[in-house]
Amino acid sequence: MSFGFKLARLLATFHRHRTRLAELRARLLVLEFGGAAGTLATIPEVGLRCQEELAKELGLAVPDIAWHTERDRVAEAGAFFALVTGTCAKFALDVKLMMQTEVGEVSEPYVPHRGSSSTMPQKRNPISCAYITAMASTVRQLSAALFDAMVEDHERSTGPWEIEWIVLPQICTLTHATLKQTSELIAGLEVHPAAMQKNLEISKGAIVSEAVMMGLGKTLGRQYAHDLVYDLCHEAAKTGKPLLELLIEHPEVKLSRQELEKLCDPANYLGYSVEMVERVLRLVKQERHNEVHEMRSNTYDV
Amino acid sequence: MSFGFKLARLLATFHRHRTRLAELRARLLVLEFGGAAGTLATIPEVGLRCQEELAKELGLAVPDIAWHTERDRVAEAGAFFALVTGTCAKFALDVKLMMQTEVGEVSEPYVPHRGSSSTMPQKRNPISCAYITAMASTVRQLSAALFDAMVEDHERSTGPWEIEWIVLPQICTLTHATLKQTSELIAGLEVHPAAMQKNLEISKGAIVSEAVMMGLGKTLGRQYAHDLVYDLCHEAAKTGKPLLELLIEHPEVKLSRQELEKLCDPANYLGYSVEMVERVLRLVKQERHNEVHEMRSNTYDV
Amino acid sequence: MSFGFKLARLLATFHRHRTRLAELRARLLVLEFGGAAGTLATIPEVGLRCQEELAKELGLAVPDIAWHTERDRVAEAGAFFALVTGTCAKFALDVKLMMQTEVGEVSEPYVPHRGSSSTMPQKRNPISCAYITAMASTVRQLSAALFDAMVEDHERSTGPWEIEWIVLPQICTLTHATLKQTSELIAGLEVHPAAMQKNLEISKGAIVSEAVMMGLGKTLGRQYAHDLVYDLCHEAAKTGKPLLELLIEHPEVKLSRQELEKLCDPANYLGYSVEMVERVLRLVKQERHNEVHEMRSNTYDV
Amino acid sequence: MSFGFKLARLLATFHRHRTRLAELRARLLVLEFGGAAGTLATIPEVGLRCQEELAKELGLAVPDIAWHTERDRVAEAGAFFALVTGTCAKFALDVKLMMQTEVGEVSEPYVPHRGSSSTMPQKRNPISCAYITAMASTVRQLSAALFDAMVEDHERSTGPWEIEWIVLPQICTLTHATLKQTSELIAGLEVHPAAMQKNLEISKGAIVSEAVMMGLGKTLGRQYAHDLVYDLCHEAAKTGKPLLELLIEHPEVKLSRQELEKLCDPANYLGYSVEMVERVLRLVKQERHNEVHEMRSNTYDV
Repeated sequence: MSFGFKLARLLATFHRHRTRLAELRARLLVLEFGGAAGTLATIPEVGLRCQEELAKELGLAVPDIAWHTERDRVAEAGAFFALVTGTCAKFALDVKLMMQTEVGEVSEPYVPHRGSSSTMPQKRNPISCAYITAMASTVRQLSAALFDAMVEDHERSTGPWEIEWIVLPQICTLTHATLKQTSELIAGLEVHPAAMQKNLEISKGAIVSEAVMMGLGKTLGRQYAHDLVYDLCHEAAKTGKPLLELLIEHPEVKLSRQELEKLCDPANYLGYSVEMVERVLRLVKQERHNEVHEMRSNTYDV
Repeated sequence: MSFGFKLARLLATFHRHRTRLAELRARLLVLEFGGAAGTLATIPEVGLRCQEELAKELGLAVPDIAWHTERDRVAEAGAFFALVTGTCAKFALDVKLMMQTEVGEVSEPYVPHRGSSSTMPQKRNPISCAYITAMASTVRQLSAALFDAMVEDHERSTGPWEIEWIVLPQICTLTHATLKQTSELIAGLEVHPAAMQKNLEISKGAIVSEAVMMGLGKTLGRQYAHDLVYDLCHEAAKTGKPLLELLIEHPEVKLSRQELEKLCDPANYLGYSVEMVERVLRLVKQERHNEVHEMRSNTYDV
Repeated sequence: MSFGFKLARLLATFHRHRTRLAELRARLLVLEFGGAAGTLATIPEVGLRCQEELAKELGLAVPDIAWHTERDRVAEAGAFFALVTGTCAKFALDVKLMMQTEVGEVSEPYVPHRGSSSTMPQKRNPISCAYITAMASTVRQLSAALFDAMVEDHERSTGPWEIEWIVLPQICTLTHATLKQTSELIAGLEVHPAAMQKNLEISKGAIVSEAVMMGLGKTLGRQYAHDLVYDLCHEAAKTGKPLLELLIEHPEVKLSRQELEKLCDPANYLGYSVEMVERVLRLVKQERHNEVHEMRSNTYDV
Repeated sequence: MSFGFKLARLLATFHRHRTRLAELRARLLVLEFGGAAGTLATIPEVGLRCQEELAKELGLAVPDIAWHTERDRVAEAGAFFALVTGTCAKFALDVKLMMQTEVGEVSEPYVPHRGSSSTMPQKRNPISCAYITAMASTVRQLSAALFDAMVEDHERSTGPWEIEWIVLPQICTLTHATLKQTSELIAGLEVHPAAMQKNLEISKGAIVSEAVMMGLGKTLGRQYAHDLVYDLCHEAAKTGKPLLELLIEHPEVKLSRQELEKLCDPANYLGYSVEMVERVLRLVKQERHNEVHEMRSNTYDV
């Protein structure tokens, strides 16, 4: 699997988040203006007219009915923020794992006086990743508090609504900061292909055992090929000899060195990575195109 | 505010939930079939073709790229269930409050041997409401666990995915049970209009003080009317005399008994309740109509 | 059940909280000072000595071993705050229910310009209760984030520890505010015994049906008494006649009016309320006594 | 830092959990038996006596006052389970990180047909760790639901108590399974010292740079030693040469090869690891001793 495949998955996920955002905007950007009970009883005759004008003024939609004690719109936004920060946290975890001293496949962008050790200059600590992880974990819990805030009593509020006052500003701030950190992390991520290459070789070829098995299966029969490769992988692990060498030496394996080298090269075992990555790129390009088009045709945008 | 206004708000909220469901179905009902790394590397040549056929067979959409470690689709479904059960819990809370001995405006449907007291035959306990409340609270917390499950490591899973195994069946079961209880609760709810009428009178008219103030303001001036009504409300609370009587007796109030009765009748202070309820009903009728239409034009529905 | 019984339960719960606090203090007020890996390797020879002196200076205990990545002490404190605010929220809910217009048994303390309605001067909104409810709900979720913060990686921290930075200050602040609001609420709570009395009468005697049944059972036999009381309760609910009157009129009930009045008086059906309340008071008095004693014998207290 | 230091920290944490368990047992194993309102009103005269006898029969303590709607005892137990499983999850995370192909310092115990790959026989997947992580995450959220369950209404329950019915059995089952998996994981953990040794060398000595700096500081002055080591670490990272070799070659470093080898050996930079580990062992031995003693002096144990 390529590193690009990993990033394309991230991109595809953010594409889904953009779709979600577009959908919930329509539900969230709705006026709430109806008086204590929500019936506009204090504004007889021109109540609905007033509501309509105010909505227009604020760039909000007119509600069908009062929703001051039906808080699904707000809780949905909170859940969306938990989804978005969850995706950021998943990516941050991957980066942290790849930044481990023993792995070393990527580094966080270099920021002077941040994340580097005074005595280990080549080392960089995953500062952004740590922040992203912590903020996502907090947003996750706070968004559950917004589900709690939905359980309002009658048409007033004696507690649940007040939960929103406490947690909504935090959810927004933490989500913003998470997105900012993630965006900077992606923009400045240092990728170390040599380390990736080296780590692929740690297993002495066992990582491509599936490909080898299927390649040999064509002439040796699938079950026999499975047992043979299994034994050789075991031997490779014990002796430290690369699987490739063991295959070349083996009397029953009739493939040429060149053919075996090809089988043992992880770069030849990427499956449909490229096609899938391109699908995602097309999707996102189309999205961008539509957005630009839409923005042009709208002189007024909420 | 009418009881129907409360129910129309519930209906409008469920209308939004139906829209959400339709939107997330498209994201959720997507095939995941790509092998360990998600690249379909084990099926060279016909991998994408296989994927397409399998998706068709299962009635699922073809994914753009692997998503076995990008679990936003599943977490979104969990959050949706938390939203739906949250709405049920809000309604159950209202029913519980209205079922209190001192309020008595509605009763849960009568189910033999359930929720009634052996010595207090007229009393009915809010059994369904209790279940709904408890299940919604659990779904809320479990759905936060699904946000946690998004933070998967690389392309494998060493824990986060397994969270789904534990909590997803429970979320589905609890949501189903919550909807079933809520549906039966609504279908069989006993409404007691006489108790509602009686409770409106508890405040001795103070509940319509806003309407009275605005009615008197036309002749007395708004500020003066405010102070007068404020004083009379105070007196009503102290003496137990209805506000209407105090208004009739008051020398400065020139309106006829009939006019004052009209001002003091909460039924004349419903604002745009009726219009709003009708808006919601139209909306839902339209939705039903569209669904039927859509079902007819689809011979095959996922 | 008396109102004092409710408050004594609250007092007993806070007594348990004080015990918990004393227990966790010993675990929480412990020095963490050991360098990056926790081994004090940077201070050879005098490391342990240094640690001891620092702990003495700060009034903290010396740890057995490093705990910078074992955060059970902090998570335990968070859970304790969730327990304490949970108790406050339970009491606030009771107050809110008792403050409902239809119930009216207590009122929040009067604070000028807060919680009162301009047109309904006698009405007071449960402002403190709303705050307490909302804050407790937030603390509950944030304390779950501290459980998450326990899952640290190795001896460093790349995210979990940072959760504490975000949520711990909030948990402390919100808990403090919750305790302050609860303390003021209790200190200034207005209790309305007349309303309590009136609400007891709503059921027309059915509330004491258990007592009546047991009183009649002595002469009529338990099963027969049960059926008779059940029928009379039903009649009371239908006709609005008090159970007492129905009992007096009934030919099979041989008890005198005085005896029946005693049976029907809820004040005679308090069970061991008084004994239990006194037990709690003794317990708390003893605790206070011990604390004063302890404080006197300690010249230095952390 | 030694691997034993990591395990001793785990042991010390479980020691604290045992203390917590002992403390909360006294609060949890308390009878609740008081009738609907908790006052024992249905058992006049012998109510308290009955309560006492029942408690004795069940091996439970007698409560000071009813606690059927004060659920701090149950919520505390849930929080304790979240703490315990949190500790297990922290250890499981460490094991997962050490089991990564690129790290390979430990392996989960070998269980036939579990966690091994058909083609990669030497590889073992962290199955127990995955389960522990997932279960701990679920317990964490469910225990927050128990905080929610504390917010009961009055002396009855219309929802909050029912939360306990749903989540308590799960919390107990999941905690039991987590402890079982963790216990088996620790008992059968395969430790690979050779891999640990190899990973220590990855940084080419930078891992002991702090020790070297302090060793050289004695003769070169601290600031000068810092700059020198910083430069050499940088060079080691760039060239791949071990820090030791660079130090030996450096003209300003006057220490002998033997002295430098000692400075560069991480085994000489363990600080007070041994002392701290022994402290923990003494603590736990003492605890065991006390428990055995206590069990002997009790013929009857709840």
